[in-house]
Amino acid sequence: MQLTDLETPALILDRNILDRNLARMREHITQLRTSLRPHVKTAKSIDVVRRSLERQPGGITVSTLKEAEYFFSNGITDILYAVGIAPNKLEHAAALRRKGAALVLLLDSVEAAEIVARKGVELGVRFPALIEIDSDGHRSGIRPGDRSLIEIGRSLHEHVGTALAGVMTHAGDSYNCSSIEALRDMAERERAAVVQCASELQEAGLPCPIVSVGSTPTATYAQRMDGITEVRAGVYMFFDLFMAGLGVCQIEDIALSVLTSVIGHQPDRNWIITDAGWMALSRDRGTAKQRIDQGYGVVCDLAGRPIDDLIVAETNQEHGIIADRHGRAVDLARFPVGTLLRILPNHACATAAQHSHYNVIAHEPVVEAVWPRFNGW
Amino acid sequence: MQLTDLETPALILDRNILDRNLARMREHITQLRTSLRPHVKTAKSIDVVRRSLERQPGGITVSTLKEAEYFFSNGITDILYAVGIAPNKLEHAAALRRKGAALVLLLDSVEAAEIVARKGVELGVRFPALIEIDSDGHRSGIRPGDRSLIEIGRSLHEHVGTALAGVMTHAGDSYNCSSIEALRDMAERERAAVVQCASELQEAGLPCPIVSVGSTPTATYAQRMDGITEVRAGVYMFFDLFMAGLGVCQIEDIALSVLTSVIGHQPDRNWIITDAGWMALSRDRGTAKQRIDQGYGVVCDLAGRPIDDLIVAETNQEHGIIADRHGRAVDLARFPVGTLLRILPNHACATAAQHSHYNVIAHEPVVEAVWPRFNGW
Repeated sequence: MQLTDLETPALILDRNILDRNLARMREHITQLRTSLRPHVKTAKSIDVVRRSLERQPGGITVSTLKEAEYFFSNGITDILYAVGIAPNKLEHAAALRRKGAALVLLLDSVEAAEIVARKGVELGVRFPALIEIDSDGHRSGIRPGDRSLIEIGRSLHEHVGTALAGVMTHAGDSYNCSSIEALRDMAERERAAVVQCASELQEAGLPCPIVSVGSTPTATYAQRMDGITEVRAGVYMFFDLFMAGLGVCQIEDIALSVLTSVIGHQPDRNWIITDAGWMALSRDRGTAKQRIDQGYGVVCDLAGRPIDDLIVAETNQEHGIIADRHGRAVDLARFPVGTLLRILPNHACATAAQHSHYNVIAHEPVVEAVWPRFNGW
Repeated sequence: MQLTDLETPALILDRNILDRNLARMREHITQLRTSLRPHVKTAKSIDVVRRSLERQPGGITVSTLKEAEYFFSNGITDILYAVGIAPNKLEHAAALRRKGAALVLLLDSVEAAEIVARKGVELGVRFPALIEIDSDGHRSGIRPGDRSLIEIGRSLHEHVGTALAGVMTHAGDSYNCSSIEALRDMAERERAAVVQCASELQEAGLPCPIVSVGSTPTATYAQRMDGITEVRAGVYMFFDLFMAGLGVCQIEDIALSVLTSVIGHQPDRNWIITDAGWMALSRDRGTAKQRIDQGYGVVCDLAGRPIDDLIVAETNQEHGIIADRHGRAVDLARFPVGTLLRILPNHACATAAQHSHYNVIAHEPVVEAVWPRFNGW
């Protein structure tokens, strides 16, 4: 099958670029003498994740129990569920553990530790859990130096329904860094935060087998990983315009695109109308706050090469409006009705989530495989 | 099953509110002596759409051929595909017509009309098509008065592979109106645009059986529908914060919400952390440009009542950050870990699309049914 045989919109994954991205991160993490626990939330595909696990210990990070369920049913047992656990998910988590999944939970309060411990006793399972550390003020976790660390650690360690598995942090604020230097600093801050917490737990006589960090920007720019047992990252597999804007990749490293058809024109406004709206591209406008606002995506030809200064300037549910980024005239005759274009996304996680499968290309324009993905909870 | 038995995040649909919204629009359109062709792109659920078709002719509007396929397989034959047709979808469209679907296409150029006509001949089918009229400069279509109207009409009428089915417009710019008066004017402008084009076609001796208008805001505020054969609307079924901000509904009319659990707190920042991030709520921030910015959604209790000034201020993929909209202190002790909350969405179409089914409630908190929905193309 050729790209020209697909009905649009359709999600395209370039396997050559994917493999290059996977190899680059793997080599970097190996050089830093730690290991990779890929985050599967971006790809949600066993075909992609298997490739990401090559020459790695085999553990993954998930953002939903549905991901845990799916990857476990595909033979992956070492699973970190890296979102603070909600009480109504504990029966599901227990069922997974009973089936043999080495599922590890996350929490950041004595309150949550006690809820999990009680439920563990009730269900007859022991839930291993990491303590979430807030290394950058971005979202969840306790700050390094917070005295509740030992209290939570002790609670997890001493209750029969729980076990203390270690500490983890996610430097989500790295997405707001404005230079490579700042990314390097953020990576070091992320590392130092959990290493400090791990030491404090050990000094208090508590175990801390896992010391986990991760975000694609910090994983890419980290210069040392002393004391770190694993690095989590997900979006590095596909990359996107946001990561390119942050300096974490080049436009050429973006493996994901949305194939679309020209369906009309508005000559007065220099608009090309397509059938890839926000439903196909996602509503993510991450680059809006970056130095270069890429609209809803960069417009490429069928071979994946960006065309002049064309971006998807506006979207409706199933319509995209392509225009010159500076509002200049567009030679509409170059893009007759039926022309196929490929749109590079702002945010790979969000765009991929709008689709049910990847049309895989390597030596374009042949679709060499269709890899299923899933969504939901 | 109770709401408290669900794993979060989960999509909740209040059937009482849905039915009230459906009845209100149906009565309004009936009073205007025209009929409703519900747009199924918001609900993508046969259970919802069947209710919307009560006492209406039975035709629907779709935004994808997958919608056409699904609703046709559920017994609905009269289907308008209201997005300009892309050439690579014509074989699929022909297959649907051969199976018995009265599928009508849309286009806005002689170029597209000729592509469709050629493919019709090649496939041995006749494709009926509407001409899209641009009543507001919002997106696709030709302007009223554009001389290509007759040319496109003649092309559709005279080719064996096509038939001229009429004209349609969508006043998408009604989403930018700032007063009820402006919405009324927009509705009249929408009506006048297609009625004028229908007359021009008829004066040129061409048929124009369908004269179609629609958008939820204009359908709600239209005061006359003379010359209009059908009105299309979709989001009125569920409504959302954007529509409330536009004055098209009240907060109490929003039938859709996302159930979420509190998973933690950041006392220093007055944040409540939940498990409904942008994956569950969508990335849609439609209210950001309105008078009242509702963040990623308004926070309600389990009964659906808004709580003080709490909104979802920020999201990550699977995390929501709830804060006071004015940045004031929040009594976090009221929201212990495990507390269930319901989030009203910015945009019903976008939020529903993140989920695979509706948990239907009527006399809360009992889940009386699970209605499946679908996504993709």
